[in-house]
Amino acid sequence: MAANVSANNHHSAGTEPDTVVLGVDFGTLSGRAVVVRVADGTELGSAEYTYRHGVITDHLPGHTDPLEPDTALQHPDDYREVLRRAVPAALREARVSPGQVIGIGTDFTSCTVLPVTAEGTPLCELPDLAGRPHAWPKLWRHHAAQPEADEINALAAERGEPWLPRYGGKISSEWQFAKALQVLRDDPGVYERTERWIEGADWIVWQLCGYETRNAATAGYKGIYQDGSWPTKDFLAALDPRFADFAVSRLDHPLSQLGERAGGLTAQAAAWTGLPEGLPVAVGNIDAHVTAATAQTTAPGRMLAIMGTSTCHVMNSEVLAEVPGMCGMALGGITPGMWGYEAGQSGVGDIFGWFVDSYVPPAYHDEAAELGLSVHDLLSRKAAEAAVGEHGLVALDWHSGNRSVLVDHSLSGVLVGMTLATRPEEVYRALVEATAFGTRTIVEAFTAAGVPVEDLTIGGGMVRNPFVLQIYADVLNRPLRVVATEQSCAVGSAIHAAVAAGAHPDVHAASAAMGRVREGTVDPDPERAAAYDPLFAIYSELHDHFGRGGSDSLRRLRSLRHAAYTSGPTTPEGKR
Amino acid sequence: MAANVSANNHHSAGTEPDTVVLGVDFGTLSGRAVVVRVADGTELGSAEYTYRHGVITDHLPGHTDPLEPDTALQHPDDYREVLRRAVPAALREARVSPGQVIGIGTDFTSCTVLPVTAEGTPLCELPDLAGRPHAWPKLWRHHAAQPEADEINALAAERGEPWLPRYGGKISSEWQFAKALQVLRDDPGVYERTERWIEGADWIVWQLCGYETRNAATAGYKGIYQDGSWPTKDFLAALDPRFADFAVSRLDHPLSQLGERAGGLTAQAAAWTGLPEGLPVAVGNIDAHVTAATAQTTAPGRMLAIMGTSTCHVMNSEVLAEVPGMCGMALGGITPGMWGYEAGQSGVGDIFGWFVDSYVPPAYHDEAAELGLSVHDLLSRKAAEAAVGEHGLVALDWHSGNRSVLVDHSLSGVLVGMTLATRPEEVYRALVEATAFGTRTIVEAFTAAGVPVEDLTIGGGMVRNPFVLQIYADVLNRPLRVVATEQSCAVGSAIHAAVAAGAHPDVHAASAAMGRVREGTVDPDPERAAAYDPLFAIYSELHDHFGRGGSDSLRRLRSLRHAAYTSGPTTPEGKR
Repeated sequence: MAANVSANNHHSAGTEPDTVVLGVDFGTLSGRAVVVRVADGTELGSAEYTYRHGVITDHLPGHTDPLEPDTALQHPDDYREVLRRAVPAALREARVSPGQVIGIGTDFTSCTVLPVTAEGTPLCELPDLAGRPHAWPKLWRHHAAQPEADEINALAAERGEPWLPRYGGKISSEWQFAKALQVLRDDPGVYERTERWIEGADWIVWQLCGYETRNAATAGYKGIYQDGSWPTKDFLAALDPRFADFAVSRLDHPLSQLGERAGGLTAQAAAWTGLPEGLPVAVGNIDAHVTAATAQTTAPGRMLAIMGTSTCHVMNSEVLAEVPGMCGMALGGITPGMWGYEAGQSGVGDIFGWFVDSYVPPAYHDEAAELGLSVHDLLSRKAAEAAVGEHGLVALDWHSGNRSVLVDHSLSGVLVGMTLATRPEEVYRALVEATAFGTRTIVEAFTAAGVPVEDLTIGGGMVRNPFVLQIYADVLNRPLRVVATEQSCAVGSAIHAAVAAGAHPDVHAASAAMGRVREGTVDPDPERAAAYDPLFAIYSELHDHFGRGGSDSLRRLRSLRHAAYTSGPTTPEGKR
Repeated sequence: MAANVSANNHHSAGTEPDTVVLGVDFGTLSGRAVVVRVADGTELGSAEYTYRHGVITDHLPGHTDPLEPDTALQHPDDYREVLRRAVPAALREARVSPGQVIGIGTDFTSCTVLPVTAEGTPLCELPDLAGRPHAWPKLWRHHAAQPEADEINALAAERGEPWLPRYGGKISSEWQFAKALQVLRDDPGVYERTERWIEGADWIVWQLCGYETRNAATAGYKGIYQDGSWPTKDFLAALDPRFADFAVSRLDHPLSQLGERAGGLTAQAAAWTGLPEGLPVAVGNIDAHVTAATAQTTAPGRMLAIMGTSTCHVMNSEVLAEVPGMCGMALGGITPGMWGYEAGQSGVGDIFGWFVDSYVPPAYHDEAAELGLSVHDLLSRKAAEAAVGEHGLVALDWHSGNRSVLVDHSLSGVLVGMTLATRPEEVYRALVEATAFGTRTIVEAFTAAGVPVEDLTIGGGMVRNPFVLQIYADVLNRPLRVVATEQSCAVGSAIHAAVAAGAHPDVHAASAAMGRVREGTVDPDPERAAAYDPLFAIYSELHDHFGRGGSDSLRRLRSLRHAAYTSGPTTPEGKR
């Protein structure tokens, strides 16, 4: 399939650029800066900085004490280093002068959250707290706060807290309250010293413009801010008396809307970046959500699926509804004034990668090498040759649990229909189809809840994979729009910077001018789409049987697995 | 685990043998002859002949017309060639003179069946019929008679034929009546010329002693002979008026009991084999059933599981009962005077082989090569290190369908519980465990039906695999006896030859003297056995859900698969 790429580049790349904006995307392992032309979104240059400390899981820098399992921390200066290195490098590559830059915008992984002083200094940078793990930023995928999340959910369900259904019935262990409660329980001294508990998304803006702001998106999605309120003092005190004033004292702050100007660049940040002091800085944002601007999906009912190792679905709507099993919703969570919805699939590319890495025999690796293909591409090519349903397989894509619509991470993968003739490319295709069925389940849940999905756009690394895109189009039986840049987050931040700088009246207008979507769509084949319906019916049956109470066997298997780990080996020829 | 092998060899191999018998096993791809000492069962020599024509599936020898799908034929002269080549070679290797040989016995795959003249000449050896596929022997795994089997089963169920429950409620497409009805329907001319419709087991004896005999085992298990009768003329006429006299005219014959003398070696057979004319020839037998003598499991309640690519379970009982889901039962089917029960698992070693061949990555192949292990052994070694349940997986072992206790070949494999951390050795172990759970299901079905399984002996190629044996002992929570020879079929035939020659009073006595079972047992570990109970509970739940009406999704997937084959490609980037 020919990639039909054509961004909204009305000028050729060689034209002397006029005004530009900078977008900076803070990812899990690195930060990327991109220089984007304000007029039409053309990317003029980019640069990446890989965090020196990466993800801190084993011990703190300069220490040897082992960290608790499931801990995932980061070093705040790695984030600043992106400003110091990647921004100037991107400017150099773009060959623009600092004077041409009219604004800077950022996005961040979320919920990545850290304890800071009233001045914004990370506690881990205070000499007396540097050796205390809980003084460090907790990366989104820090999963050690599960007991605290369980506690919050049980109490909220018991008390019927009105905000709980807004999060699909479950607050994640990844989010602000669970992580903060873990700090309080595990290191009350650090909790005491925490004057502000702040998302990385807002902290980096604080570093740029010199004072605290809080964006509406992370407050709503990750901070349990709903209908103008935090969880009550009463609720928090019931969790722990010391936690009663957590929201009021450590989170509360006037919220800023996405696309607003947070402030102007400080002299210090100007020195770091080489940009002019006072340069407009956009309000902080989440990496997935900022991409809606790049994908031109800020209008209500346009769903964006950002597909990579996992998939995040974001969609604006004018409707307030509780969609069973979504991850969360926030007023102004994507653009001001609209309800931003979020759903997700915990495993997508991760599942394909798991299979390719561990379940493909030598002959396939040899054949791929001979043909100059990746093993992924070889499997795709072989699998593409078959008719829908010819493999006789259906899988459940729960190898990492199920984020939407079941919100249950104790689930696991299922594969049915294997025969002795089943080949690896058939299993691979069944896994791809399973993730497409998962997306269809999410789309149907939104529609059934009265939040219709008008169209669907695909972003993320998976846009490079025509085999996957075609299966999604066929399974969903709708044309797919496709994002045309691989820097979709950083470009989204740049679009927000243009709005903050006043170059476009709002995010919608900036997105229309600067967004980057392929011309044309990936269209379903009617015959294949029809053939997928009975397979999807089987997926749905298995989904409900294993996920909605028909059988709790996956949960029992998980318990047995955990018990076996704990009890040690009881094995034939056990060797531990 | 040290293989604790000690056959009943009271004499060393160097001792000058006295009287011996010959056992000849006619398998799927080859025939094996073994020379066995009558006194104690010592194997003195053996030889194998690989059939020149193997399994004929694509076109008849010397022809190019393609055969119908699912056809599997053999060449009758390949069977004679075993007599001409393997028997003399085994005698040479054993260094015995023909004069020391007191009898010859045979066993055969079943139901392998062929049309012959009244003189025993295979129709495919008549010049005018040699080009007609239905004139050729149909191998047991010829599966093209499924429509005829379906017809027989539907009519028998509708009429409440009393013999149907004796076969677990279903006559197999592999058996005598379905295959004969296919001949009638597809080539009535060949059917007309068929004077006798005979099992390979009985035909080879006819070749040896010059006249027709019929053994009680194949008549009962594969021929629907129950309580002294065949299916009625009325029933057969209802299938097809031309089929009304099929049993009476083409099958019926006085039945011989296993271990009896069928006759004496003809001059021609003596010339082929180098054995004396007139040598006692034992009645024909089935490969699985003859092994009960080798395994010393002819007493009631001793179950023998012959484990190879698939598993066949045979057991004698004094009790007549209908065990739901067994394959069949026959009076005198294993030894005269007792009810011989048969059950089976369609896929065992085949499933392990499928996984090892196609789902193990290059790094494992490299590691196995480095350690000088087979990939099977590497996976076993890695899998053995884990505690029971640590992998969090349960599989259903239905990749080739389910022979017992569901008797449903439209079923297929299931695997549940995968995570991104699931490793190949864990899936491998789950597959081994699934087949052990399948055996446990069969054992429990017998016991529940009032046919208790007193003990369990393992034979077949899997006796070489201590990892598999230990898992079976743990899952079944009982000590396993293990056959001590890899020539268990041919040795069983030799034991029957000794009885036919009058050297032992009956099969039980001959088995006691000549059988070959390891000293000691493979014993369960109480802790592991207890840990398997909750996994078996999940297996049983999945088994009943997918196999007994909870969900018909596996059957629907099979239908979709067949429909996709038929309709051709409806594919992304379809290339057909």
